[in-house]
Amino acid sequence: MKISKIAFLILFSCLSVALFAQKNSFISSPNKQITLKVVLTENGSLAYQVSYKKKTIIEPSTLGFSFKKPEVLLNRFQIVGVDSSSFDETWKPVLGEVKSIRNNYNQLIVKLKDSSKPDYLLNIIFRVFDDGIGFRYDFPKESAIKHFIVKDELTQFNLAGNHKAFWIPGDYDTNEYLYNTTKLSEIDAVKAAKKETDIALQAVIGVNTVQTPLMMKTADGVYINIHEAALLNYPAMNITLDKSTFTFTSHLVPDAVGNKAYLQTPFQTPWRTIVVSDKATEILSSKLILNLNEPSKIADVSWIKPQKFIGMWWEMHVGKSNWYKEGGKHGANTENVKKYIDYAAKHGFDGVLVEGWNEGWEDWFGNWKENVFDFVTPYSDYNIDELTAYAKAKGVKIIMHHETSGSATNYERHFDKAYQFMKDHEMNTVKTGYVGRIIPRGEHHDSQWMVNHYQRVAEKAAEYKIMVEAHEPVHPTGLHRTYPNWLANEAARGNEFNNAPNLGLVPEHETILPFTRLMGGPMDYTPGFFHFQLNQYDASRTTRVKTTLAKQLALYVTMYSPLQMAGDFPENFDKHLDAFQFIKDVPVDWDDTKILEAEPGDYITIARKQKGKDNWFVGAITDENGRKTTINLDFLDNNARYEVTIYQDAADADWKKNPEAYKIDKKILTNKDVLNVSLANGGGCAISLMKLK
Amino acid sequence: MKISKIAFLILFSCLSVALFAQKNSFISSPNKQITLKVVLTENGSLAYQVSYKKKTIIEPSTLGFSFKKPEVLLNRFQIVGVDSSSFDETWKPVLGEVKSIRNNYNQLIVKLKDSSKPDYLLNIIFRVFDDGIGFRYDFPKESAIKHFIVKDELTQFNLAGNHKAFWIPGDYDTNEYLYNTTKLSEIDAVKAAKKETDIALQAVIGVNTVQTPLMMKTADGVYINIHEAALLNYPAMNITLDKSTFTFTSHLVPDAVGNKAYLQTPFQTPWRTIVVSDKATEILSSKLILNLNEPSKIADVSWIKPQKFIGMWWEMHVGKSNWYKEGGKHGANTENVKKYIDYAAKHGFDGVLVEGWNEGWEDWFGNWKENVFDFVTPYSDYNIDELTAYAKAKGVKIIMHHETSGSATNYERHFDKAYQFMKDHEMNTVKTGYVGRIIPRGEHHDSQWMVNHYQRVAEKAAEYKIMVEAHEPVHPTGLHRTYPNWLANEAARGNEFNNAPNLGLVPEHETILPFTRLMGGPMDYTPGFFHFQLNQYDASRTTRVKTTLAKQLALYVTMYSPLQMAGDFPENFDKHLDAFQFIKDVPVDWDDTKILEAEPGDYITIARKQKGKDNWFVGAITDENGRKTTINLDFLDNNARYEVTIYQDAADADWKKNPEAYKIDKKILTNKDVLNVSLANGGGCAISLMKLK
Repeated sequence: MKISKIAFLILFSCLSVALFAQKNSFISSPNKQITLKVVLTENGSLAYQVSYKKKTIIEPSTLGFSFKKPEVLLNRFQIVGVDSSSFDETWKPVLGEVKSIRNNYNQLIVKLKDSSKPDYLLNIIFRVFDDGIGFRYDFPKESAIKHFIVKDELTQFNLAGNHKAFWIPGDYDTNEYLYNTTKLSEIDAVKAAKKETDIALQAVIGVNTVQTPLMMKTADGVYINIHEAALLNYPAMNITLDKSTFTFTSHLVPDAVGNKAYLQTPFQTPWRTIVVSDKATEILSSKLILNLNEPSKIADVSWIKPQKFIGMWWEMHVGKSNWYKEGGKHGANTENVKKYIDYAAKHGFDGVLVEGWNEGWEDWFGNWKENVFDFVTPYSDYNIDELTAYAKAKGVKIIMHHETSGSATNYERHFDKAYQFMKDHEMNTVKTGYVGRIIPRGEHHDSQWMVNHYQRVAEKAAEYKIMVEAHEPVHPTGLHRTYPNWLANEAARGNEFNNAPNLGLVPEHETILPFTRLMGGPMDYTPGFFHFQLNQYDASRTTRVKTTLAKQLALYVTMYSPLQMAGDFPENFDKHLDAFQFIKDVPVDWDDTKILEAEPGDYITIARKQKGKDNWFVGAITDENGRKTTINLDFLDNNARYEVTIYQDAADADWKKNPEAYKIDKKILTNKDVLNVSLANGGGCAISLMKLK
Repeated sequence: MKISKIAFLILFSCLSVALFAQKNSFISSPNKQITLKVVLTENGSLAYQVSYKKKTIIEPSTLGFSFKKPEVLLNRFQIVGVDSSSFDETWKPVLGEVKSIRNNYNQLIVKLKDSSKPDYLLNIIFRVFDDGIGFRYDFPKESAIKHFIVKDELTQFNLAGNHKAFWIPGDYDTNEYLYNTTKLSEIDAVKAAKKETDIALQAVIGVNTVQTPLMMKTADGVYINIHEAALLNYPAMNITLDKSTFTFTSHLVPDAVGNKAYLQTPFQTPWRTIVVSDKATEILSSKLILNLNEPSKIADVSWIKPQKFIGMWWEMHVGKSNWYKEGGKHGANTENVKKYIDYAAKHGFDGVLVEGWNEGWEDWFGNWKENVFDFVTPYSDYNIDELTAYAKAKGVKIIMHHETSGSATNYERHFDKAYQFMKDHEMNTVKTGYVGRIIPRGEHHDSQWMVNHYQRVAEKAAEYKIMVEAHEPVHPTGLHRTYPNWLANEAARGNEFNNAPNLGLVPEHETILPFTRLMGGPMDYTPGFFHFQLNQYDASRTTRVKTTLAKQLALYVTMYSPLQMAGDFPENFDKHLDAFQFIKDVPVDWDDTKILEAEPGDYITIARKQKGKDNWFVGAITDENGRKTTINLDFLDNNARYEVTIYQDAADADWKKNPEAYKIDKKILTNKDVLNVSLANGGGCAISLMKLK
């Protein structure tokens, strides 16, 4: 790390403190377009404000805490000192959208003491990047406070107007909502949550409370995204809006007894992040959240691999088979899983996810039951030794599934045996799941204890060189930098909701997710559905996939993840093997990414360069409205020819009426070419550009 | 097992049910002195009543449940059938007060269906022994209820009068209270709890709620003890008194969200027990609670051994050293522990408990901190490998100490590594501790989750052939029959409270404990204090041991445990090596036990026969009032001579003024002899009777 002190350090002295108290502190982004101002008001409250290109983005917003123990309101301060520095570094992610990431910011640390208890110390660390700001609270070891219980965090985000917002209801237990697009003044999270009868477990906070990442757009076209980075040993942040001032205040997820966090100095909270740009594409290319996370804690990352997989999974969702064994439709039987292994081997997939392999599914949900699964007992028709040998012979990895039913205590008791069992059976990747009410009872999916649990999973799995992707966890906050084995998460409404009977999915959903959920990290969205009317095995079903087939392909590019599923099952892929070729070709790890165009809720077009290769892949998606777009291929190498395969909606394609209509064109093109493509209503376009030698 | 059907089974038929509804059911004890009557009243409530020697002991008391899910009040029934049987068996405890135990009862199973929901089934199983009754609720698999959440158990104990009672306040988190002796009408648990400033963590339930075992004595001299047996997967029971009718109703300990238990059929609750006799000695010799527990679940019990031990423990209590390492007074350093090992080897003790050996003590209590100890990291001045070898060479076992600070989740995460660490270091016994607020936060020491935790400890330890004794657990309920490696518990105010600055202990305490706490199982009371004014290492201390020295010896006999500590430390024992000889001689496992005389709150005299030997040991204790008593040696073998050593209070001994005054007499006696002994105020007498060949 290179740190150059660019500014002054005001030492502890009455004089300097008194002088400073009259002043404001400023700090700007390296490119000077973002300015952060920190103000100590006369009554001792500390506020920050942010401007972008000379427009105020965040009006003065106060900072502070309320503690339950010691019982103190930490929101009236004296400034003890200010420390400024700058930082510029380029680092390489283990897996990612780009080969290297520049981490360049100016930093301001404001050192505070409590006005009434001067030995209660608090620092606030601000970092200003070209793409936004981050700040965190730092409780130093020198403080007279040693252990403390957080009652409330009092962080404000005071917005400058009644922006357009893309939001989901604040909730302690689920982030699997559809996005609502309204003015801030129109937010009604309770009403929005009530519509969501597809979600089995809700813990809605209130009318004015929404989750982060919250995406907004101002009337004059500035995009603002509020979230958090490096959420460790702390509850997730929701934010509550005061509609009279458009001020959000942090709302932390409580534990079983209503406390927010149990902490001990020294401690630093997660970063509160504000990504800002007048270009929507720059929101998507921002690496601010990753940059605010710590570097990898895993020294040897050689065993961490990007993966593409198919799985024994969707066929249960559509009623072809069951997770549980009784009834004669058990999906995860030896013979059936062998077929998946064969299919993965034939088509070059790295892995086969197998759900429903272990005892417990016959009674797993809805009763707040603690000891559901033991994670090591296969159903009697699942010959794990035979399948281990079979998969190994075929060069395919079986992906473990650890559904916990929300019973985290039970999972933790079985950690070591479960992961050793995986190693004994040649598995190196686990999909975890937290469907249901959390145990310890009274804890929430997003409370401090569970945040620590997800971290424990990542760390314990790393001990066994196991990669993890979590379903139903807390919202991601860039921790895949620190724990690169934590490949991906669900943590939002995934493609599987196409099968939900009520609201389900909507065509705009995937145009919003990259601006919201994916700001925190990769999502296991499970794209790749090739069959649209989901009544193949149960004629009574009215659910359907709400995209075109071409859009399903495009999602492999627009929804970044180093772990991508081909969601549908073999017989449906077999009906469209020409289109399936794109899924076979598309990589899951990249050297470069260009966000070509984007508008939240409307469309996204992204080009990505394959890791270690000269091939590019483009994905373009739209919402319910078809659109035409022009893709300039100037990102390709000079003086090179590319075999370009374009998978696009047929002229009569339509997500609702004709989703399977697509056409595939092949061309030889160069970086001088442009491509005009048409996206159907709810449609998309996927393009592979293979460099010719 | 031999079961003989002695009565009728009424089959499912409207006729028989209708007929039966008009009737009452009766069942008597094998000796006919106790009769239980079950009555279905006209409104459908089911009540039981109990008489002893034709006196009503329990007036009609209703039974039932309130469920939260499904939301139903299960207290109006139709009787579907009645099943009676009798049982007579003799079994051998692995460790115990007697060589074999007779389990002889008549059983009545009343099969019920809910009046409004006839597919909701409930059986109540009553067993009537010569020494009392037990009953439990049985939720059969055939019931339409599969999963259920208990809101309240509605079990009544309707007493026939305003009895004298020996009680401690009902509390969710501690049972370390002094006993109160009042009429039932005078119970005020809140007031009693407020006095108890020696207890760091209280969760008092209310004025009229007390804990079990509750000991009572009627005006006409009948002793009644209410408790529970086989407390598994269920919260502990407290009982709340309606003073207008002297009716207690069960009050279960809630979890973090106020629920009592999460259950699944088939399920049987713990037994509710009522031990009754007109002889106080028969209360103490009752094996009813053991008999109501299941036989050992551990097949190979060869590794389960009774033990006598000393420990690095009391010296921290009195300020000679510290648990933690900073400050230069760390007790558990290598050199110091070697001295304990030497002393144990020299005097024939099996083990040395070492507290403060592991990192964490520097910050272990009071902050609801989750990750305090890892159970495998010794302090740097504790050379565990050297001590392992040293202890092994000396033939002494080091006893592991796992203080959890109440953080059960953290302990469970470390189970396997902690127990493997013990095995790797030649340890086979662990003292656990739960000082502090429980984690999962919101759970209590006595809630269902923690009851399951203690069971998990016993089971997990058994996997590693490790014996357990728990401090600060839920009240014991005879589970040492089922888990014989669960040797003992604290679960009451122990001898260590002599060092508490406020109420501390009182001389009557040990005359009550066998009638209350010990009804559930052995206690690690840590007798054997030889130094009485506890200001040896800290002149400011005003605390003192509130017995005579002779009484400390007698406690080894009156307070049964297969795991007994000699509580004081070597230099204090060395001052009274002649008295120490009794502690060296007294066994901790027995072939026979005779309760010679007893009155709760006043005195107890017990004789026990050494396991596998012909020696007897007698302990006699009194409360604050001195007494003279005559011990008839007719329990000794005929035609045999015994070398009798009598350790008794000197004539001028007094717990307060002269506790160290004792005399030791040696005699040769036979079973024709009687011994007249004088117990000082707060005094006792210990006698060894070694058969001469």
